[in-house]
Amino acid sequence: MERTKFRLDEKDMPTSWYNILPDLPEPLPSVLHPGTGSPVTPDDLAPLFPMGLIMQEFSPEHYIDIPEEVQEIYRTWRPTTLHRAHRLEKALDTPAKIFYKYEGTSQAGSHKPNTAVAQAYYNKKEGIKRIASETGAGQWGSSIAFACALFGLELKVYMVKVSYNQKPYRRIMMETWGANCVPSPSPDTKAGRDMLATDPDCPGSLGLAISEAVEDAATREDTHYSLGSVLNHVLLHQTIIGQEAMKQMEMANVYPDIIVGCIGGGSNFAGMFLPFVKDKIEGRKPDLRIINVEPTSCPTLTKGLYAYDFGDAAGMTPLLKMHTLGHAFIPPAVHAGGLRYHGMAPIICHLHKLGLVEARAVPQVATFEAGVTFARAEGIISAPETNHAIRAAIDEALKCKESGESKTILLAHSGHGHFDMAAYESYLSSKLTDYEYPEEKVKEALAHLPGAPAA
Amino acid sequence: MERTKFRLDEKDMPTSWYNILPDLPEPLPSVLHPGTGSPVTPDDLAPLFPMGLIMQEFSPEHYIDIPEEVQEIYRTWRPTTLHRAHRLEKALDTPAKIFYKYEGTSQAGSHKPNTAVAQAYYNKKEGIKRIASETGAGQWGSSIAFACALFGLELKVYMVKVSYNQKPYRRIMMETWGANCVPSPSPDTKAGRDMLATDPDCPGSLGLAISEAVEDAATREDTHYSLGSVLNHVLLHQTIIGQEAMKQMEMANVYPDIIVGCIGGGSNFAGMFLPFVKDKIEGRKPDLRIINVEPTSCPTLTKGLYAYDFGDAAGMTPLLKMHTLGHAFIPPAVHAGGLRYHGMAPIICHLHKLGLVEARAVPQVATFEAGVTFARAEGIISAPETNHAIRAAIDEALKCKESGESKTILLAHSGHGHFDMAAYESYLSSKLTDYEYPEEKVKEALAHLPGAPAA
Repeated sequence: MERTKFRLDEKDMPTSWYNILPDLPEPLPSVLHPGTGSPVTPDDLAPLFPMGLIMQEFSPEHYIDIPEEVQEIYRTWRPTTLHRAHRLEKALDTPAKIFYKYEGTSQAGSHKPNTAVAQAYYNKKEGIKRIASETGAGQWGSSIAFACALFGLELKVYMVKVSYNQKPYRRIMMETWGANCVPSPSPDTKAGRDMLATDPDCPGSLGLAISEAVEDAATREDTHYSLGSVLNHVLLHQTIIGQEAMKQMEMANVYPDIIVGCIGGGSNFAGMFLPFVKDKIEGRKPDLRIINVEPTSCPTLTKGLYAYDFGDAAGMTPLLKMHTLGHAFIPPAVHAGGLRYHGMAPIICHLHKLGLVEARAVPQVATFEAGVTFARAEGIISAPETNHAIRAAIDEALKCKESGESKTILLAHSGHGHFDMAAYESYLSSKLTDYEYPEEKVKEALAHLPGAPAA
Repeated sequence: MERTKFRLDEKDMPTSWYNILPDLPEPLPSVLHPGTGSPVTPDDLAPLFPMGLIMQEFSPEHYIDIPEEVQEIYRTWRPTTLHRAHRLEKALDTPAKIFYKYEGTSQAGSHKPNTAVAQAYYNKKEGIKRIASETGAGQWGSSIAFACALFGLELKVYMVKVSYNQKPYRRIMMETWGANCVPSPSPDTKAGRDMLATDPDCPGSLGLAISEAVEDAATREDTHYSLGSVLNHVLLHQTIIGQEAMKQMEMANVYPDIIVGCIGGGSNFAGMFLPFVKDKIEGRKPDLRIINVEPTSCPTLTKGLYAYDFGDAAGMTPLLKMHTLGHAFIPPAVHAGGLRYHGMAPIICHLHKLGLVEARAVPQVATFEAGVTFARAEGIISAPETNHAIRAAIDEALKCKESGESKTILLAHSGHGHFDMAAYESYLSSKLTDYEYPEEKVKEALAHLPGAPAA
């Protein structure tokens, strides 16, 4: 019998996170203070984050120990399983070998708890009582709610209003874990009130919800802010995925030719590929391909400008050098899943500029088609985000069928789609449509970028 | 560090199911043919089930090999993890040790695939092309849809109409896996049409949906019927849970003093406790307590009569000796979760009569209170069904706090509640109410029992 599953013992779970920063061939562009235009200092960030996380954001260390308290909680669902997709390979009739690392068995159903638990831990350790955060469809909000419940932290989540109204189940999940969740824009912050005054029916956006959560944290002594993607320390925490996957691929006696994953802010996929990209940087695996997959309706890495921009809509955050669609970006109404952030993790953008990773945009109907193929072959109903990665994995496997090559494809599977059945229904009843974000709208949005140093 | 998780290697997954039938101190009462009143023969059942399953229903063998094809699929999510609930123990401040065996990481999110995969396999092997089945809230329907997708079988699911309308997500899940799902009563069967003629607004019941699926299977050459609980072969397939748990409890160097689980038809909990009850039957563990937990609104084992009754509403099935609320039972409208079947697995009823297992009914508000405590301590949001078991586990742990005893409690955790957030919302907003099914209604319903030999 060929093995279908590769599992690590609990004792073989990595005990440190991998930090790419000192291994980058060129240093990452600095984060800038929007007032001065100078690089931000740890003190600038102290009102928002605990020093434990701020130090990680700039750390020169190659590995950072995972605190025992975080390991203990990781071990409630980790190490996660690496699967060989024998059934999918057979359904596609491809000589490619497809592996997927499945993060959907966490208590929140996705990879997000990998960083949520770490962030809650460092805040708790530094005496913080309360966290403010934002969420789009709710995958991040539910994960930080889970983590705050375990550490006894109070939590307020600003949830993008259109999702708050259309997708109540993730909100109830947050409330079950004890969090307070309000629709954004809310009357609870200046950023929210300003928007409501301009447009009382504003559906909200991730950028605006971030503004509200940042303002909440910045104006309360007992409160810090927590972000579920984009920042260096978030990607750092997710490297537990890639480090486990490396060991598991060794168990399977293979090394990937291609790694694919979906990107919204980029933390799940970076968590997978960063330990592998080190092999590419250091010349051991020059031919390794790393494919970042995003929606054509939010084509940050494929169409956005690589420039300094705010992380939020209201312009309250430091300036990040990243691919961006402009911080006022609001995803088109037809867009069904997550992956709807206007920016992208600076580490991913930097690696992209250095030619170490690729980017690809896929239309959403094709992603659900891939998701249904995967569900009927492998049995897992995947999150709409993950379906982007599955689409690319299937496309690469089909290319192998054409060429006769037996490439090894490693898929970062970020979570299950049990909260996304309405999107599947739209697909199954042929109501889902594609949308290509137009170049002109990108250009128009980018005209509003702040007067910060350009690329 | 104390261990929180006990995982078996794939190679240590049990390779046979445990069959309690030959170990029972008294033989199980026969299943009767409703026409003749005589015990049914394998041939009587052949229009509905493949011979592989029929033979299991009556088997005198102590162990039955799990076919390699079934093992291969089991291994995509099994062995499941046994957790030590350190955090819950701490939250309750109890000296009790609480362990839970978590079945929520299967692709369908519950224990149901353990038997769905086996049933699909034997049907496929015997040349059947199509399965007809029923589902209430959809946990079983989605699991048999998952299994039929993997074996390439066509599936039609009759879903209780009130759930079909109120809980579309499980239906979409079935459709994603390729199944055809219709509301029951449906115009597609005589049983459905008769009910619609009497009451066009009938909300449906599990018993009626079973009638429709049985009729569908009985009237089509290419189709068999599939049931997700109650029958001996279903419980047999679930014993993979208890056999794994035994090995894992050995890893933890403990043996349970108390095993708790929820019962609707009884398959999940019997799957857990049957391998342990053998130790009690054979005198090795005379003090082991096994507590079956059911809702006060569907109190089959605590208030139902132990008598012969039909498995379905229309009276199409053979007669089973079981505790029953009468086959015309319709659960009260306030009832939020599953566990709504009028009868109970004959094996459990027989063990209950022999004094080998206990029964307890709990009101639903208290079950959600327990579920929220569990979610905030252990991080897992559980199915409403499972919350019944959690309630009893917490109550036993609190008794230990009173008495100072350090008992070991093993909880059968049947699955996650990610499809049940509306019920959590009702609880969190104090809209959920309790309901005690009245004795008079039980007596009234039982007056309609068929003229079969009584208890």
